[in-house]
Amino acid sequence: MTRYEHLATILAQRIEQGLYRSGDRLPSVRALSQEHGVSISTVQQAYQCLEARQLIVPQPRSGYFVASRKAQLPVPAMSRPVQRPVEVTQWDQVQSLLDARRDEEIIALGGGAPDISQPGLKPLWREMNRVTQHQHPGALCYDELYGKVVLRQQIARLMLDSGVHAALDDIIITNGCHGALAAGLLAVCQPGDIVAVESPSFHGTMQMLRAFGFRALEIPTDPVQGISIEALELALEQWPVKGVILVANCNNPLGFIMPDHRKRALLTLAQRHDIAIFEDDVYGELAFEYPRPRTLKSWDVDGRVLLCSAFTKTIAPGLRVGWIIPGRYRDKVLHMKYVTTGTIVGVTQMAVAEFIRGGHYHRHLRRMRHLYQHNMEKYAGWVREYFPCGTCLTRPKGGFLLWVELPEKVDMVQISRGLEQYKILTAAGSMFSAAGKYRHCLRLNCALPLDARHQRALKLLGEAVHQALAA
Amino acid sequence: MTRYEHLATILAQRIEQGLYRSGDRLPSVRALSQEHGVSISTVQQAYQCLEARQLIVPQPRSGYFVASRKAQLPVPAMSRPVQRPVEVTQWDQVQSLLDARRDEEIIALGGGAPDISQPGLKPLWREMNRVTQHQHPGALCYDELYGKVVLRQQIARLMLDSGVHAALDDIIITNGCHGALAAGLLAVCQPGDIVAVESPSFHGTMQMLRAFGFRALEIPTDPVQGISIEALELALEQWPVKGVILVANCNNPLGFIMPDHRKRALLTLAQRHDIAIFEDDVYGELAFEYPRPRTLKSWDVDGRVLLCSAFTKTIAPGLRVGWIIPGRYRDKVLHMKYVTTGTIVGVTQMAVAEFIRGGHYHRHLRRMRHLYQHNMEKYAGWVREYFPCGTCLTRPKGGFLLWVELPEKVDMVQISRGLEQYKILTAAGSMFSAAGKYRHCLRLNCALPLDARHQRALKLLGEAVHQALAA
Repeated sequence: MTRYEHLATILAQRIEQGLYRSGDRLPSVRALSQEHGVSISTVQQAYQCLEARQLIVPQPRSGYFVASRKAQLPVPAMSRPVQRPVEVTQWDQVQSLLDARRDEEIIALGGGAPDISQPGLKPLWREMNRVTQHQHPGALCYDELYGKVVLRQQIARLMLDSGVHAALDDIIITNGCHGALAAGLLAVCQPGDIVAVESPSFHGTMQMLRAFGFRALEIPTDPVQGISIEALELALEQWPVKGVILVANCNNPLGFIMPDHRKRALLTLAQRHDIAIFEDDVYGELAFEYPRPRTLKSWDVDGRVLLCSAFTKTIAPGLRVGWIIPGRYRDKVLHMKYVTTGTIVGVTQMAVAEFIRGGHYHRHLRRMRHLYQHNMEKYAGWVREYFPCGTCLTRPKGGFLLWVELPEKVDMVQISRGLEQYKILTAAGSMFSAAGKYRHCLRLNCALPLDARHQRALKLLGEAVHQALAA
Repeated sequence: MTRYEHLATILAQRIEQGLYRSGDRLPSVRALSQEHGVSISTVQQAYQCLEARQLIVPQPRSGYFVASRKAQLPVPAMSRPVQRPVEVTQWDQVQSLLDARRDEEIIALGGGAPDISQPGLKPLWREMNRVTQHQHPGALCYDELYGKVVLRQQIARLMLDSGVHAALDDIIITNGCHGALAAGLLAVCQPGDIVAVESPSFHGTMQMLRAFGFRALEIPTDPVQGISIEALELALEQWPVKGVILVANCNNPLGFIMPDHRKRALLTLAQRHDIAIFEDDVYGELAFEYPRPRTLKSWDVDGRVLLCSAFTKTIAPGLRVGWIIPGRYRDKVLHMKYVTTGTIVGVTQMAVAEFIRGGHYHRHLRRMRHLYQHNMEKYAGWVREYFPCGTCLTRPKGGFLLWVELPEKVDMVQISRGLEQYKILTAAGSMFSAAGKYRHCLRLNCALPLDARHQRALKLLGEAVHQALAA
């Protein structure tokens, strides 16, 4: 680390710790130079760096002032992926990410797990306990092919909030959102088919494309507005695309919520080109706004949207309770569910149904939304403090994931490997691109507790990025 | 129940319990009349009833004697399926079978569910209860990609009994045996590929072939010796077969255990033609013989056998705990598991691991083997009693499934439809053939309780068959 970077870090910490508060005037260049025994130009460089990070603002003829806490890093620009269908790569990176779950000591900054330590989940434990205490045969026998009725009833109610009116037999319970997306994709597409995806896009879905022999066509995506409908239209004119996978609400990894008019425009486009829409709504209920945003499915008049979701992010991943509302593809999706998983575990379905019915789910959700929003502000603060000039950051509208864009020179794949020695696991941006782009980006999980251990991990990560830039 | 029926039931029970043994002379009509305080004609009617059920035989001028227990129906001959690859049909029939799970009043003679009402499962409930009582985080967090270590340790031990030495990372936990077979098939085969199957063969596996676009090549199979190795060899010379699916131990639906020398011969053949073997061992631990039979996998020297199994039949289907030991295909199978299901439910994995570790699994298994063997004798007796001449019946070496071959003229698909009005669900043989053969056959589930309701269902089924023959 150079002298000016060192000084900038010290000052940033003082601001973060509140020693210098929002609106405070900072010491003069001369005063700092004397205090730290460095040259005038070093102080000037440090101040310029903090200014670029929007931590301080210059006032003509008055010096530097601590920026309002509302100051945020700039948002990344629209993505510019490869403009042709490609076979998905990057399984090795994804597998390392998943393998890390074996080691409880690892700090999984790159993971996608929600916080399952909150007291709001106590009633869920109670319900699971009740099912096993009463030895409910529904926990041991073969489940219905569609999944438990009591659960589908609750899901039908939840879906109303997203604008979807679903009958019980429109809903099929699956092994998590993974099971839903897999059954949907297998039902609609054949090997060799082209599927359009947002870019960047959730690595899990892209690994499905890889496994099933589909090709991914990455579409430019804006971190605020979502997928570029214009670019998608051009792509549909050029390629025989079978469907498009979208996380329109609380996008993974970008955090945006597509505005309603763009959702409708997208649906119109899909109708015109007769393609299917795989809508991944797994983060939809974690939107910070109230009421929750509408799904694409809510405007679906001809059953071309396959709505896929799960309680993985809103309750807990280990339950493996997801669902699909497959529209016109229902019979094939049901067959695909049957052949890939048979049926689904009973005990967790029953417990979740009671958890929702008793009102605990909505209480828990309200709490988690606030918690994640608060966490995200903290993490954004740490990124501002520890990361170099030129860092861009998303401003998510829900969920708990941040997307960080670093200067082009930084290679997060290499940095990730280096951080393994500290048991810090990061998700390089490249696993969110079919072709392995976005190596200078990373995804951060803000559902992790806000303790000193995680702050330190962010700091180490920031230092590694600084070093990569200096090298 | 009339008086004579009541008396017949008492006598049948005494025979069943061994109070009267095979060849014993039964009490005279007069003696019984006095013992039970009923009329001579009531005793005569009771004896006639037992005679019709082949439980007793009259000897002229000597009275009645207990019939030899060895009297059995003939075994069906080697099957003769279509000798070319076909696309699997019959999904509508399979779906009706699965849909019946919605209705608890239905008597599922055609299903494949084990008996989950036995007290041997109490410790399992206790373990599930303990996990939820202690709020074990392993029940809610993302599972490891391979599945829980504690469970894989227990499975590795169980597999030793089948002759398989597996390291922990050779074992991947799946969503039931379905999840194992699906991941295995998807990892090895491409759409259009040909997969050889026993004929008849489990309908679930064949529906996988249908869904994934593979073609099935049915191989003649003997109800005692298993798949014809000679016929398979001819098929391999003629067709580019990718692999063969086998239930070598306690076959579904035929009940045979392939003799060891035939298992080894099959493996040699697979090596010579370089094909994969998908070994479905889900009934293997329910063999009536002790120690349990060896798996094909136990002789697998070059990793071409993908051993698929689950606790679905030995403990309970609703747990959805299965596993695959995929040999050389491990990395691809792991990827396929990830994309089709993500990870697997935690709570049932943990409970099963403890159930085995505490010795409850083996105790339960011993009990269930005896129970199923006893049930099967009863069901075989009912078939003998209620079904027409010309009926052939398998003599299973384990599991709880009987395969009944009726005279060619009988159409079980039609009879099945007719029995729906009585809420009796049967599995016509045609769903066990890719091309829809075996319409004159059916599979019977002997894990159902041996009560009057199920006996009556068998009787009604027998009457329907008689009527079909008379028509």
